[in-house]
Amino acid sequence: MTWRASVLTIFPEMFPGPLGVSLAGKALAAGTWSLDIVDIRDHATDKHRTVDDTPAGGGPGMVMKADVLARAIDSVADQRPRFFMSPRGVPLTQAKVSELARGDGALIVCGRFEGVDERLIAARNLQEISIGDYVLSGGELAAAVMLDACIRLLPGVMGKEASGLDESFSEGLLEYPQFTRPQIFEGQTIPDILTGGDHSKVAKWRLEQAESLTRQRRPDLWTAYSGQPKKSGPNG
Amino acid sequence: MTWRASVLTIFPEMFPGPLGVSLAGKALAAGTWSLDIVDIRDHATDKHRTVDDTPAGGGPGMVMKADVLARAIDSVADQRPRFFMSPRGVPLTQAKVSELARGDGALIVCGRFEGVDERLIAARNLQEISIGDYVLSGGELAAAVMLDACIRLLPGVMGKEASGLDESFSEGLLEYPQFTRPQIFEGQTIPDILTGGDHSKVAKWRLEQAESLTRQRRPDLWTAYSGQPKKSGPNG
Repeated sequence: MTWRASVLTIFPEMFPGPLGVSLAGKALAAGTWSLDIVDIRDHATDKHRTVDDTPAGGGPGMVMKADVLARAIDSVADQRPRFFMSPRGVPLTQAKVSELARGDGALIVCGRFEGVDERLIAARNLQEISIGDYVLSGGELAAAVMLDACIRLLPGVMGKEASGLDESFSEGLLEYPQFTRPQIFEGQTIPDILTGGDHSKVAKWRLEQAESLTRQRRPDLWTAYSGQPKKSGPNG
Repeated sequence: MTWRASVLTIFPEMFPGPLGVSLAGKALAAGTWSLDIVDIRDHATDKHRTVDDTPAGGGPGMVMKADVLARAIDSVADQRPRFFMSPRGVPLTQAKVSELARGDGALIVCGRFEGVDERLIAARNLQEISIGDYVLSGGELAAAVMLDACIRLLPGVMGKEASGLDESFSEGLLEYPQFTRPQIFEGQTIPDILTGGDHSKVAKWRLEQAESLTRQRRPDLWTAYSGQPKKSGPNG
């Protein structure tokens, strides 16, 4: 079954963009997912194809019009979840990505300017999602990020080698350090334990490293992880 | 002065991609920033242009080789800060974006597969940066996100209308709701206060809305904001 993405934007030329290359691009060509690009300007009603207007109450910039966006959404809306990418939104997490990837797809509205008319968000039941605490020039790259994260989890996209299980966040920990040949790089060797052939020692070392990194770099994740019911280690 | 971005990737065709369109694209054409795309495979030494190898200690996937990446970095490195986009990294914030935008530019290594050899990160002084707590198929979209956030802050890119000041995170709050014409959309009107013409009431309403949204949606930001020395409101 094809996972269906609809992206509503005033810059249709941004898509598929990076999503047309590599893993996502191959999966798009294979029909694992589909991409429906809706040019919001096609749903304007004046000859200038106007999509924005000045903010009520004043202030800098322009606001995207509820009526035009509503028509654009209604042209493609179905039972899929609908999103508006925005720094005001709920932070995107890997858990949310997994949930979305198990569904039918997503409809994503990409905002520009100072945002969209608030009435549209409620009237069309848009979930506001943020990819992080920074401001982009528009929602397009945020939409691409969310789609890429979902697409790589679709069945068959990653293959057996990298199952999507043995990675960041699936255990609530940051990833352990990786090494590969050459054995000596600028005087630094690969840690002996990784080349010693004892798989249980390797697993124990990796868990310790992941725990240590998480504790140092992300006290927020560490608190959540260490408060969980204790998992048994690789030897127990 | 041109803000200089160097992006190291095995998918050079992903760039400029969305960064060649709209605000970032115009600024690129105008010479406000430059984009140097380095194909990591050009720095491999075998005829297959190999950039990765199996992880020391076993496990799924492949790891990018320190020696090849070091040569790619050394081909362009200078005094600019160097980054490796990774879910293990320090979370990207608007404060970091502003700091970067005030500098000379950035060199960004885009990882693929299971990551890069840990020795490379230390040997080339790469700052690990994460755009959020989710996993992408590679660092390319993360690099594009970080660059887009920086580029819009470069002098002259946004113009006077949207100065980059009156927006999310600059005060530690989420943005207040926006409205624009039509006055009535599907039975919903624009709040009277925004059309009443009293600018101080508008400013007060917007601050209250921003505070309320932040408290509801982002207790983490709210705690940081409400713990700051109190700012005077719009009325004094």
